[in-house]
Amino acid sequence: MKKWILIAALALLASAASAQVTALPKPNMKHKTLKVMQALAERKSIREYSPRMLKDQDLSDLLWAAGGVSRPDGRLTAPTAQNKQEIRLFVFTAEGVSEYLPQTNQLKFCVKGDYRKMVAANQDFAAAAPLSLVIVADIGLFGADNPRAPMLGAFDAGIVSENINIYCAAAGLATVTRATMDAAGIQKLLGLSETQLPLLNNPVGYLVK
Amino acid sequence: MKKWILIAALALLASAASAQVTALPKPNMKHKTLKVMQALAERKSIREYSPRMLKDQDLSDLLWAAGGVSRPDGRLTAPTAQNKQEIRLFVFTAEGVSEYLPQTNQLKFCVKGDYRKMVAANQDFAAAAPLSLVIVADIGLFGADNPRAPMLGAFDAGIVSENINIYCAAAGLATVTRATMDAAGIQKLLGLSETQLPLLNNPVGYLVK
Repeated sequence: MKKWILIAALALLASAASAQVTALPKPNMKHKTLKVMQALAERKSIREYSPRMLKDQDLSDLLWAAGGVSRPDGRLTAPTAQNKQEIRLFVFTAEGVSEYLPQTNQLKFCVKGDYRKMVAANQDFAAAAPLSLVIVADIGLFGADNPRAPMLGAFDAGIVSENINIYCAAAGLATVTRATMDAAGIQKLLGLSETQLPLLNNPVGYLVK
Repeated sequence: MKKWILIAALALLASAASAQVTALPKPNMKHKTLKVMQALAERKSIREYSPRMLKDQDLSDLLWAAGGVSRPDGRLTAPTAQNKQEIRLFVFTAEGVSEYLPQTNQLKFCVKGDYRKMVAANQDFAAAAPLSLVIVADIGLFGADNPRAPMLGAFDAGIVSENINIYCAAAGLATVTRATMDAAGIQKLLGLSETQLPLLNNPVGYLVK
């Protein structure tokens, strides 16, 4: 009887764990994005979004462009200072918040519930996007008392945000780089430490025709 | 006689002024750059450069990609916080230092002499690039005592640097984002104020075959 309970408990745990992590489709490297010069010409800050949720493939391509693994050694599309890979990407939707795991191309479910208003703060347009990507810099990785750490994290957050901007311009999606959000609320919601800083966010959606 | 002196003086002034500012070729929007997904896949930090100076057209395309005017209202390829357009780009070569003027697509000559070692600081590879782009954020534009100003400038510097990285990956050029440089020396050399901060730099050159 004890053995049966143990097996049942393990099965429940395994099922809970698998529900927490979802595989994303492989990024589609043949995605017909614009050429770089044209994408840079098209890039602009767009604050109106179709409410339609992104298809899984589009979400995967977007996250990969933002900061996915581009090389066999695990290096990323976005460079980081000293290759610390201190940037974490969280996806806020109407359903909840998930973290992008670039090394395994997965989404890890973090919190159930619609917290897009926490990202939007006082700017309603941002809460109307089907998703927002929140860029967190784990600046403790630059050393406990490194006075340059916040700036290094900020450089790298800007870099990831521009990958998102250029990808969206190339793929016909709408987005804008924002520094406004309820950063303290997001830290609490996601159980982040005081050196894990929500620095920038990008609401993303299909273009309104 | 007085009139002749005046005319001669004006001619000299005009010639000096025209020597200070050089028109760049128009950016070539048909430049055969990679598509964005491929450019992101190719992007990597490269620390070895052909010593050959960039052709004028390639330099123009590079600077436009970094932060050129992309729209009739004067907005740029790189977004800036509150559209303050606080980022300034300086080109360091063996000949001297010039500033990119995006609104007129010109280079303004600032200082004669090879100051690439000031950008390289303790990393010799960077001084071997035919040019380095130094990204300066004029953070006074965010308000005299705005505590967020350094971070806003850092986000925007990262954004411009990633435009450079993606353009170089797409156009077959070598570059790397660097935060190391003699920032105080560069401020003095270029007559920058203490709120005009050299934050990042990108050495750029043709790939070594």
